[in-house]
Amino acid sequence: MNENEVHDVVTIGAGPTALTAAIYTTREDIETLLLDKGAIGGLAAITDWVDNYPGFPEGIAGLELADRLQKQAERFGAKIDFAEVSSLAKKGNVIELDTTDGKIVAKAVLIATGSDYKRLGIPGEDEYYARGVHFCATCDGAFYRDRKLVVVGGGNSAAQEAVFLTRYATHIDMLVRGPKMRASDVLQKEVTKHSDKITVHYNTSTDKILGKDSKVVAVEGTENAKKKVTFETDGVFIFIGLKPNTTFLAGSGVELDEIGLVKTDEELHTNVAGIFCAGDVRSGATMQIASAAGEGATAALNIRKYLEELERNNP
Amino acid sequence: MNENEVHDVVTIGAGPTALTAAIYTTREDIETLLLDKGAIGGLAAITDWVDNYPGFPEGIAGLELADRLQKQAERFGAKIDFAEVSSLAKKGNVIELDTTDGKIVAKAVLIATGSDYKRLGIPGEDEYYARGVHFCATCDGAFYRDRKLVVVGGGNSAAQEAVFLTRYATHIDMLVRGPKMRASDVLQKEVTKHSDKITVHYNTSTDKILGKDSKVVAVEGTENAKKKVTFETDGVFIFIGLKPNTTFLAGSGVELDEIGLVKTDEELHTNVAGIFCAGDVRSGATMQIASAAGEGATAALNIRKYLEELERNNP
Repeated sequence: MNENEVHDVVTIGAGPTALTAAIYTTREDIETLLLDKGAIGGLAAITDWVDNYPGFPEGIAGLELADRLQKQAERFGAKIDFAEVSSLAKKGNVIELDTTDGKIVAKAVLIATGSDYKRLGIPGEDEYYARGVHFCATCDGAFYRDRKLVVVGGGNSAAQEAVFLTRYATHIDMLVRGPKMRASDVLQKEVTKHSDKITVHYNTSTDKILGKDSKVVAVEGTENAKKKVTFETDGVFIFIGLKPNTTFLAGSGVELDEIGLVKTDEELHTNVAGIFCAGDVRSGATMQIASAAGEGATAALNIRKYLEELERNNP
Repeated sequence: MNENEVHDVVTIGAGPTALTAAIYTTREDIETLLLDKGAIGGLAAITDWVDNYPGFPEGIAGLELADRLQKQAERFGAKIDFAEVSSLAKKGNVIELDTTDGKIVAKAVLIATGSDYKRLGIPGEDEYYARGVHFCATCDGAFYRDRKLVVVGGGNSAAQEAVFLTRYATHIDMLVRGPKMRASDVLQKEVTKHSDKITVHYNTSTDKILGKDSKVVAVEGTENAKKKVTFETDGVFIFIGLKPNTTFLAGSGVELDEIGLVKTDEELHTNVAGIFCAGDVRSGATMQIASAAGEGATAALNIRKYLEELERNNP
């Protein structure tokens, strides 16, 4: 890595948001480097089947969609490096990034690191990920028409999504760790209204996800810290929170919201000039590939405007 | 059409925004009717080739993309009607639409009528549309690497896009109708800075686009209202403004911005509860299919939340 080189655009992350932004920037001859610590394609790449990404009438495997996005970005000249960003700072008109691949300097940065769903860390959770274990009802609920489900969690999103999943599931066992839900009263009432379909189990831990022939068949838990309980099911939805990938922003001056997502204005610009943010790590994100990709395109157009202005003011 | 029927969601327009929203709503069993006065697929359907819609590494014909979006929405149960909306009004908790197909009532409405590019109305303009005559530099500029171009217009977008197109074109003749540009001083200076590539012709009308073998070869104009002039070229970009499709909103109470685009909040909700807006007709739109589709998905999730709340408050 040449330390004197100043990139036009560096994206942190190489998921659908960054890849779409790169399709736009590189097609407009704006030099663009994508940095990712892990795999290309973000959460999309580890999604078994994507049914609602617009343009694929029968759906598409997440890995294939990620691969197609990568090919398209590379076709126009995007470069991808595997490196983790540990911190960044605005210095004059440029942004300096400390990475596992050394110091990288850019005129504009797109934060597109996404968010991860919090996991339980129990046996079976990784093994059946996206094949019976899910974290997004909008994405995967429709696969469970006329099936039985287990929902794990007691917060707002767990309550809301359990009610939502009654559109599809015949029955839902909802496992709440504590003696009551943390969800708002309104949402708890909604759960109660759907008691024909939702059975809430309080004081119930979720211990293990069991499968057979590579399909989820049951969830094992413990009631009142002593009684072993088993719930037969076709799938498990876990709603215990989001983990935005923003720890590297500590000390950067980039403003976050109360759960650690990056705040932007309408043009997807953060409070630091030249640093943009889009996709699942942005405050207001929908955790949908279509929205993330769309925001990537919008961010790219605004980054182009920013670079043009930068050049005008510093010829 | 049953006058007593209240639809869950009605979209006005059936382009990429509405079709994506419908993929999301219908997949979640929210009944959805799309209304369009003309063809399905919006501007995408009449775009020759789309190179930057994320997911198609080699690009895709606009008509095919529109067709795929329609198939996907219909797969989940979206209904499409050909009808033009002449006006709409909030009445209690529902929205009433006057259409060429009678009165239609909905709990939630998505305005997704898009914007059209203003046209010159000259011979050759329609004939070579998308095959030499273009209205979007971000979309089609890259097809003109090392080619000659004509740019028509003298406002901010004409100046900005002419400068942008110098990335690709070897030379640009810019035809400005009046004795000077309406573009800002800053942008006019930018044009001057690029005088190695851009020649500005003032007091020059654009009269006719000439082609040969279904390709654009020249533009005919008139200088100072008397002298006929001809500019040989490989393509023409026309930047004389946008025409948002919002005339039917007169009297609806839905707030527009200064050029007639619909204002929304971050959740794509207009100032009228239950009326949402997304895509090219929204204030802040990028006129990109990816962004429009992404906003369609985001709008659908927020419409779902709105409908859930409506039901809670009016059981």
